[in-house]
Amino acid sequence: MNIKIEKLVKQFAKLPRVGTRAATRIVLALLQDKSGKAESLASTLMDAANTIHPCSNCGVLTDQDVCEYCSDMTRKNGQLCIVRDLSDVVVLEKSGVFHGRYHVLGGNLSGVSGVTPDDLNIAIIPNRIKSEQISEIIFALPNTVEGKTTQQYIISVIGNTGVDFSELASGVPLGGDLDYIDDGTLTLAFGGRKKL
Amino acid sequence: MNIKIEKLVKQFAKLPRVGTRAATRIVLALLQDKSGKAESLASTLMDAANTIHPCSNCGVLTDQDVCEYCSDMTRKNGQLCIVRDLSDVVVLEKSGVFHGRYHVLGGNLSGVSGVTPDDLNIAIIPNRIKSEQISEIIFALPNTVEGKTTQQYIISVIGNTGVDFSELASGVPLGGDLDYIDDGTLTLAFGGRKKL
Repeated sequence: MNIKIEKLVKQFAKLPRVGTRAATRIVLALLQDKSGKAESLASTLMDAANTIHPCSNCGVLTDQDVCEYCSDMTRKNGQLCIVRDLSDVVVLEKSGVFHGRYHVLGGNLSGVSGVTPDDLNIAIIPNRIKSEQISEIIFALPNTVEGKTTQQYIISVIGNTGVDFSELASGVPLGGDLDYIDDGTLTLAFGGRKKL
Repeated sequence: MNIKIEKLVKQFAKLPRVGTRAATRIVLALLQDKSGKAESLASTLMDAANTIHPCSNCGVLTDQDVCEYCSDMTRKNGQLCIVRDLSDVVVLEKSGVFHGRYHVLGGNLSGVSGVTPDDLNIAIIPNRIKSEQISEIIFALPNTVEGKTTQQYIISVIGNTGVDFSELASGVPLGGDLDYIDDGTLTLAFGGRKKL
């Protein structure tokens, strides 16, 4: 194959969930397209790469000084939802379940992967509580050891400021068949059972 | 989501086998990467889009006047392999089964999709037979009605020039379990059975 095409395939193949086979299909489709899809994608990507950066307040990607959530005054309702990644914000926004502000950590504390508090977007949280009059912090972190450790660490950093803390409920997912639920989830679902 | 990110997700989601969910993952990974993957991909893609075009002789994508296969004199062995798409060339090259020259049609004749001989890279084939002293034409077209129709049409265009024609064998694929083979393939495999 032509060396420029090979270089392009290799770069596409490094993207998440794209292997060499899919990358080859994508590159051939782009380069054979006569409507200018390749140029258009290249220029959109270059423009985004040059202008998109994390919001200095919450960590959500934006091309403005402050992101659309932090600058939206209707979202200043005292609720702050702490998530691991930007993709969690995308999922929560799609569900329409949350109407407050977000805080993206950029990872979870992890001894194994060597992620320390300095690697995460944690230090600014106490300032946000004051400046945005946060009354409730909702942890929407992964239901894993790392997620729970990170949650505990953040609670200890914030200390006793009168802010309410909450976390997402654990249990059987909607439509979940008990046959397919792991023991840990089942234990949590039993422990958290609701009186009817 | 930020409007520039949304635009980028939409463009990625139009690529083959990439949906909105995968496109979102790809875009977030690219824009959060700090090693410059996004800029690098954008510039490689733009460069390829500006310089890559079909080889004027065989239709394979190249950034040169004539592609690497047509300019490689060791491949001028009298064999010409006719394929539908560039992706077929990639598959054949990967297998290492063929060492001659390629000819990419860019599609197959199809009444349903309205593909006529003028839409395909057919007219130049008689010239190639003369100028490259082709002695055998190997049809590696899809084993479909469209593929066979295209093959017959090309044979009729070339006419009686002393060139040998051949097509890939039909039959049970390697490792193929008869339970999972369709009736048409089974009929072809029976008809083409080999004496041991």
